[in-house]
Amino acid sequence: MDVEQRRRQLITVALDLFSQRPPEDVSLDDVAAAAGISRPLVYHYFAGKQSLYEAALRRAADDLTELLTASDQLPPGEGLLAVAGRFLDFVETHGSGRFTLLRAHPDLIDGVRDAAYGQLLAHLGVETPGPRLEVVLRSWISVAETAARWWPDGRRIPRAELESQLVHSFVALTAVGAAHDDGMAAVLRRIVAEEPADGPFTEAATALAAL
Amino acid sequence: MDVEQRRRQLITVALDLFSQRPPEDVSLDDVAAAAGISRPLVYHYFAGKQSLYEAALRRAADDLTELLTASDQLPPGEGLLAVAGRFLDFVETHGSGRFTLLRAHPDLIDGVRDAAYGQLLAHLGVETPGPRLEVVLRSWISVAETAARWWPDGRRIPRAELESQLVHSFVALTAVGAAHDDGMAAVLRRIVAEEPADGPFTEAATALAAL
Repeated sequence: MDVEQRRRQLITVALDLFSQRPPEDVSLDDVAAAAGISRPLVYHYFAGKQSLYEAALRRAADDLTELLTASDQLPPGEGLLAVAGRFLDFVETHGSGRFTLLRAHPDLIDGVRDAAYGQLLAHLGVETPGPRLEVVLRSWISVAETAARWWPDGRRIPRAELESQLVHSFVALTAVGAAHDDGMAAVLRRIVAEEPADGPFTEAATALAAL
Repeated sequence: MDVEQRRRQLITVALDLFSQRPPEDVSLDDVAAAAGISRPLVYHYFAGKQSLYEAALRRAADDLTELLTASDQLPPGEGLLAVAGRFLDFVETHGSGRFTLLRAHPDLIDGVRDAAYGQLLAHLGVETPGPRLEVVLRSWISVAETAARWWPDGRRIPRAELESQLVHSFVALTAVGAAHDDGMAAVLRRIVAEEPADGPFTEAATALAAL
């Protein structure tokens, strides 16, 4: 392995360990053993545990940002479903440990949230959101986070249901905002109009109307 | 002041300072100056900055838990509005700094969230929630947190509107859950039935139906 590959491998190994145990319970010996190299060799790539920890955090934030902002050419409802799906893939693959790690670092996780917020605006085709749309979008991001944090522990709801519940929650929160604000009502009507008749947005509207 | 009063005063002063600046930028000299006593005297009450910091964090978590679980004998919708109101009072009084402080300590803030979750179940009169109700309630708690974190910075929505939007969001998220789950639909119908005709729940249902 060249230097860059080895650094990358060590960060991956460290990220897994830091996601599974409190940082104070992970030693450089653990990282070295998991990577199959000697502890002194780890120092060849990182100054110490703190710098490896910081690199692992940065990687976790970057990976999550990347998957939340992957570009999709889809109608708004399908686009949200795709983002929610990639997010749940991430949680299925890594469990909730990476979140727990990021959550202890508000600045990092806020950066990820800001990226997700920008992506949602792009999906909705909105450039300058008003305060009511902003609060709804940021609320929905926190709903998705909460679901992702809670769900891996037992998976007490089938994944497909959780996914569609997330998209339906988006519609419901937007509808609440729209009830308070004409501008948001216009956004909601426009995105519903762009949606295919069997898309997740229409499905949510039908389910809500049936109550 | 007796020992207990002085400790309490120092914790209050420290909590204000830690909420305004990063912990590393708050010195024991700052705390002593703000409390109007000498630095050596601070050591009479606390072993050092770390123990004062921990006491301040514990106080912030306890205060928030207490206000979120204050008992109200109100119908469910009015009860939620009262909790949301006390929460926004807290944010108006202290800004979002106390949250920022707590958010860096997932274990502490999760304890506050668990207390809020228990209080919501009590308001709804539910003893053994299913997974769908749990995810909805935990989602709503995160919606309220997000609003509280975002709102003090500019107050771009009038407070009364934010408060009612929170309660309406609760109804909307519950309705989404109810569309997936008969048990939740029964809970929703029961709480709406217990609500006065001019209560916040009925108002939300009317606003959503009008879209």
